[in-house]
Amino acid sequence: MKLYQSNASPNSRRVRIFLAEKSISMPLVPVDLGAKEQFSDAYAAINPRRVVPTLVLDDGTAIGEVPAILRYLEEVHPEPRLLGVTPRTKAEVAMWERRAEMEGFASAMEAVRNAVPGLRNRAIAGPHDYEQIPALVERSRLRVRNFYADFDARLGEVPFVAGDQFSVADITAIVTVDFATKAAGLPMPEQHVALKRWYDSVSTRPSMAA
Amino acid sequence: MKLYQSNASPNSRRVRIFLAEKSISMPLVPVDLGAKEQFSDAYAAINPRRVVPTLVLDDGTAIGEVPAILRYLEEVHPEPRLLGVTPRTKAEVAMWERRAEMEGFASAMEAVRNAVPGLRNRAIAGPHDYEQIPALVERSRLRVRNFYADFDARLGEVPFVAGDQFSVADITAIVTVDFATKAAGLPMPEQHVALKRWYDSVSTRPSMAA
Repeated sequence: MKLYQSNASPNSRRVRIFLAEKSISMPLVPVDLGAKEQFSDAYAAINPRRVVPTLVLDDGTAIGEVPAILRYLEEVHPEPRLLGVTPRTKAEVAMWERRAEMEGFASAMEAVRNAVPGLRNRAIAGPHDYEQIPALVERSRLRVRNFYADFDARLGEVPFVAGDQFSVADITAIVTVDFATKAAGLPMPEQHVALKRWYDSVSTRPSMAA
Repeated sequence: MKLYQSNASPNSRRVRIFLAEKSISMPLVPVDLGAKEQFSDAYAAINPRRVVPTLVLDDGTAIGEVPAILRYLEEVHPEPRLLGVTPRTKAEVAMWERRAEMEGFASAMEAVRNAVPGLRNRAIAGPHDYEQIPALVERSRLRVRNFYADFDARLGEVPFVAGDQFSVADITAIVTVDFATKAAGLPMPEQHVALKRWYDSVSTRPSMAA
C-alpha cells in the first residue's frame, strides 16, 4: 500500500492522522499541487477526479475519497477502532463524521476556493473547471460559524464528537478547525468554551502532528 | 426500528430502496415537509438537523444522515450485501457511492434549492436559514451534466457503478437521475448510451418502486 498525498492538503491530513492513530506506516508519495501535478496523465490514471489523497493497494486498486480510504484501512487494520465498534456506534460515528465534514470542512473549503485568486476557475476540486462565485464566500463563512456554534453545543453534552469515544469524527473536526483557522481566517470564537475544551484536549494527541 | 421519512424526499427514497432490496420491513413514519413538520419541536428532538430521513432504533437512538442509516442496516441485516463484501469492494462501493452523491445528487439538489421560489431563504437544508444564490443554479446544472458524462464513461467500462455487482452506488445514482429529471428538468442526454443501458437495466428492479 502507498498513499498519494500532499502536506498542503487538509484531506490528506485526515488520512495521515488516521494512519498515525493506528500506527500504520506506508510510503507517502508526494503530489505537488503547486506544480499542478494532480492534473498530470500519470496521476489522472490513478485518480480520475485528480484530487488527493489516493490509496493504492498492492494489487494496483486505487481508492479515492477520504471516507472510502478510511473504511479500507479500518477493515484491514481494525485496532484501535476509529469507525465505531457496534452497529449503533458505527452508525453514530458515520453520522457525526459526516456532519463535521458537510457542515464544517466543506464550508471552510468552499469559503477558501471561491476567494483565492489562484483558484479563479477552480472553485470546485476535480476534473472540471468551475468559476468562483463571490457570493458563496460570505455564505460559506457563515456556515463555518454555525458549525462552530452547533458543535460547541454538542460538545457541551459529550466528551468527543461522536459520544464517549475518540473517533474519526474528532479527526475530521480537528482538521476542520485548523484549516478554517489558517486558510479561511476563521478561528473558534472565544465564547465556545465546550468546543475549546474539546480542541485543547484532542489536539495534543501525538497523531495530530501528522 | 422505525424510519421517519417523506415520500417527497429523494434522500428518503435512497433508504426505502435499500430496505426493499434487503426485504426489511419497518414502520415508515411520515414527516410532512409541506407543512414544515420537520421544524416542529418533536422532530427537532429526534434530528437536530431537522431533515429526513431519520432511523430510530428500539433503544431510542436516532440515526440521521443516509450513509449512516445504511451502514447500520447493513450491519444488522447483512444480506444481500449492498456496501461491498471484501475490504477492497467495501472501499470501492464507498468511493463510487460518494462520487454519485457529491457530483450528482448534491448538484441536482443545489440546483433545485437555489431556484424554487418557496425555498427563498432555505437554500441549504438544516437548522439554519441561508439565502438562495442565483448564480449557483447554472453552475449546479453544469455539474449535473458533467456527472452524466463522467458516469456514462464509467458505465462504458463496468456493468454497475461500483464494478461487477449491484450496490448502494447504483441506488444513489438512480435516485439522482430520477430527481434531476423530475425536479431540475435535467434528464439524461440521449448520447450517453452506456448510462442509458445501465439505467434501463437497474431501474426495472422491483425495489425502485419504493
